[in-house]
Amino acid sequence: MNSLKDRAADIAAEAQKLHKPVWNPTQGNPKNPTPRAELQAQSSKLTSLEEAIRQSGLRDGMTISFHHHFRGGDKVVNLVVAKLAEMGYRNLHLAASSLNDVHEPLIDHIRQGVITRISTSGLRGELARAISMGLMEEPVVFRSHGARGAAIANGELHIDVAFLGASSSDPLGNACGYSRSPHAKSICGSLGYALPDAQYADKVVILTDDLVAYPNTPNAISEHHVDFVVQVDSVGDSTKISSGAIRDTKNPRDILLAKQAAKVIVNSGYFKDGFSIQTGSGGASLAVVKYLRDSMLAAGVKASFALGGITAHMVKLHEEGLIERLVDVQSFDKVAAESLRRNPMHKEVSACEYASPDEPGSATHYLDVVILSALEADIHFNVNVLVGSDGIIRGAIGGHPDTAADSALSIIVCPLLRGRIPCIVDEVTTLITPGHTVDVVVTEYGIAVNPARPELAERLRAAKLNVIDIEWLRDKALRIIGQPAPLPFGDRTVGIVLSRNGEVQDVIKQIGEAD
Amino acid sequence: MNSLKDRAADIAAEAQKLHKPVWNPTQGNPKNPTPRAELQAQSSKLTSLEEAIRQSGLRDGMTISFHHHFRGGDKVVNLVVAKLAEMGYRNLHLAASSLNDVHEPLIDHIRQGVITRISTSGLRGELARAISMGLMEEPVVFRSHGARGAAIANGELHIDVAFLGASSSDPLGNACGYSRSPHAKSICGSLGYALPDAQYADKVVILTDDLVAYPNTPNAISEHHVDFVVQVDSVGDSTKISSGAIRDTKNPRDILLAKQAAKVIVNSGYFKDGFSIQTGSGGASLAVVKYLRDSMLAAGVKASFALGGITAHMVKLHEEGLIERLVDVQSFDKVAAESLRRNPMHKEVSACEYASPDEPGSATHYLDVVILSALEADIHFNVNVLVGSDGIIRGAIGGHPDTAADSALSIIVCPLLRGRIPCIVDEVTTLITPGHTVDVVVTEYGIAVNPARPELAERLRAAKLNVIDIEWLRDKALRIIGQPAPLPFGDRTVGIVLSRNGEVQDVIKQIGEAD
Repeated sequence: MNSLKDRAADIAAEAQKLHKPVWNPTQGNPKNPTPRAELQAQSSKLTSLEEAIRQSGLRDGMTISFHHHFRGGDKVVNLVVAKLAEMGYRNLHLAASSLNDVHEPLIDHIRQGVITRISTSGLRGELARAISMGLMEEPVVFRSHGARGAAIANGELHIDVAFLGASSSDPLGNACGYSRSPHAKSICGSLGYALPDAQYADKVVILTDDLVAYPNTPNAISEHHVDFVVQVDSVGDSTKISSGAIRDTKNPRDILLAKQAAKVIVNSGYFKDGFSIQTGSGGASLAVVKYLRDSMLAAGVKASFALGGITAHMVKLHEEGLIERLVDVQSFDKVAAESLRRNPMHKEVSACEYASPDEPGSATHYLDVVILSALEADIHFNVNVLVGSDGIIRGAIGGHPDTAADSALSIIVCPLLRGRIPCIVDEVTTLITPGHTVDVVVTEYGIAVNPARPELAERLRAAKLNVIDIEWLRDKALRIIGQPAPLPFGDRTVGIVLSRNGEVQDVIKQIGEAD
Repeated sequence: MNSLKDRAADIAAEAQKLHKPVWNPTQGNPKNPTPRAELQAQSSKLTSLEEAIRQSGLRDGMTISFHHHFRGGDKVVNLVVAKLAEMGYRNLHLAASSLNDVHEPLIDHIRQGVITRISTSGLRGELARAISMGLMEEPVVFRSHGARGAAIANGELHIDVAFLGASSSDPLGNACGYSRSPHAKSICGSLGYALPDAQYADKVVILTDDLVAYPNTPNAISEHHVDFVVQVDSVGDSTKISSGAIRDTKNPRDILLAKQAAKVIVNSGYFKDGFSIQTGSGGASLAVVKYLRDSMLAAGVKASFALGGITAHMVKLHEEGLIERLVDVQSFDKVAAESLRRNPMHKEVSACEYASPDEPGSATHYLDVVILSALEADIHFNVNVLVGSDGIIRGAIGGHPDTAADSALSIIVCPLLRGRIPCIVDEVTTLITPGHTVDVVVTEYGIAVNPARPELAERLRAAKLNVIDIEWLRDKALRIIGQPAPLPFGDRTVGIVLSRNGEVQDVIKQIGEAD
């Protein structure tokens, strides 16, 4: 015969062979008759911040992570760390994609022993000053965005609990850096730096200021990766995402630098139909696109994609048909964030897809031209974007070494002097981007080309650009300013700069008095 | 002092503390000056199928996987398995999301010992017949789409090498079920069933018939997950994706069933603004949407999302504004596939995001109404969609048990008889979808409601629908056809049906003569 009952012995035998239990029909869940729109409020993931932390299994000494897509407007780091302090946590490792001046309250949490280790791409403001002066026992570990993505993916930077701010999420955790609801409170655009955290962290907590109905599609983070969803008043002040390093320059020197850099690109040999481009933060580098546009129109040259760090300028060129696709790991302003919401050819990518050194398919590997800023460049074309010439941390590595290394042409735009501070020096205060990855340094006094790229120098000279030796720029600065006094660095190491591949590339020593 | 040289000892000390190497400036890669559009042809991932197999590390006895988004038009399984046979591989486990009549050539590879184990959602055609008759030593393991996603995610179904067909890919592996290039050769739409494979397989090989320029965005599969990209003549015949179970019915009985099912929905209590809906394959269930549309227009009711299995009907309602979002794990026809390419609110989801029983946030959990077909339903509301009443495998589990279990209202549309074969029976030949998850069975002779849902029966009766006992339907079929002879099953187990949670739920015995 052939009834289910007759097959019971066979079912049991096969289960044993497969090391599986036999299905028990009496243990099935009865159907839940609640209409599903109503069921959302009962989502097991929806909870308070405190409950999410408790249920996440977070313990003293573990690693928590954050993204910095709201830049100076971020409200998540301070909110979560204050709650952790209140709950009595100690000795945590804070692994952020970057930290900003808004995170000054961390100083107190560090003093209290709540946070004892930090990994980040950058530090700014009072927090950076205090750390530079010796606030922390353990040195801060600095990684580029690509290196952070790779370290998370290969397990070197293991995240126990990620706390990720989102401008919208449904109760299941489908989350986004923008919202399509009428109740949107914030927008940051791409969540690219949060995506490795979402993918690889043991537990993922989404904090959102706009809880929307399921399904919140299209989404950046999938419910597949999310354990808890916490509704909060605000995840960030979107008006501040273009503060800090990112601004539309009106500075005449920046405009001069941007125009020169645009001429370098046009005459570099890489200005061809289908080329790709990225601009780093910093007024002059962002402004390059504006001036490149005229040349693109005149020459009938279109770009296949713009990478980054997407800005309003990039969006404009895309919408004009001059740039085919936008590949966005971070929206540098609100126009870019809005474009991501609206435009399917404006694609969000993770930090790994953007710049992982471990991935031959990451976007930086297919980047023709990158324009980057610098705090200092030296006569070996080494660049520093992290530590000021006063020895105080005041910047972020970002994607600087990633894009410089992988692109075909990396251009640094940098004034010779900032006030009384020389920017072209003998040796950078801190080595962030190695000179062998830097091709051109554009200053208002002339354009230096890395001797490793003689063909480039040739092309620029042929175009009558003012190509000079970088030593000449260093000497010029010296003549104007004189030799600066050596910085009063102490013995203690306050920061460690990792290379893209995770080696120790430089250390940052304590400056001034320890507090 | 403060030079890099002076810091060398500190750098070494910190490296030792962190168990990391010291960065060596002489080991950096020199810049590659090649314009990046040209560099793509040199992608290290681009290779031949044979080379990809060789480099993947595939060994005898390992598990290979495939998706079935081209359904009857698939060309990847036969191509790859023929190559594996040619290369001398033996004893492989083929784990496909489903198999179709086009895969008849596998019979020979099974006979030769190239393939010795199969996991799939379904089997059709000559391959199914041969396996039903005892072709394989090892029983085929059948899982629902949700169970397969979960088994891949939790490691129970470990995939060594995934071979995933894509209608476009760039040389880095950003791949899609459609193409935006003028050279597109195929289109299958969503790659939802391939996404868990891409995410979790040890090695991922993309086969594509349209190699496009980087970046192939927006994309379904990311280069992050891809190891090899192989260009082939054809990955599938798109004209066949709506063949097999999926067709727009002209059958008057199907139309009657569809109209009745639409009435059940409208009067079920779940037909409210913001409801969600899915239709399974099968003419009658697909046609329900067509008749539901009139009621939606008349009542001013809109759906928040349609899930599935997206069809041209669903796309039409979405474009008319009657369905806000489409959530697509599989495009059931070319219209749906084209819509996915065009429309950002038509969202591609993975099998896990669709129906994983392990994910409280998977889409099926937020599904109000699902309309499903059946080969047989029995008086305990159990449903069989896999094995014909002749004992021969001729179908696929698909998302049937997933959607039935998780939805608020599951409706089976099924004729009382198909020719001389009764479809409402005492006991299903093979138990696929347990009766406690099935709410309503719609036949041309009346509508049976699961006694566990008395409130539903009440509502349908109040709407003057012909609600009858399921035993009455069974008796009616018996009266017309008489008691069918018991099937001549043998002793050997040819198939194992796993429950959604991976328990052994039923076995399929050999039928007829072994060959």
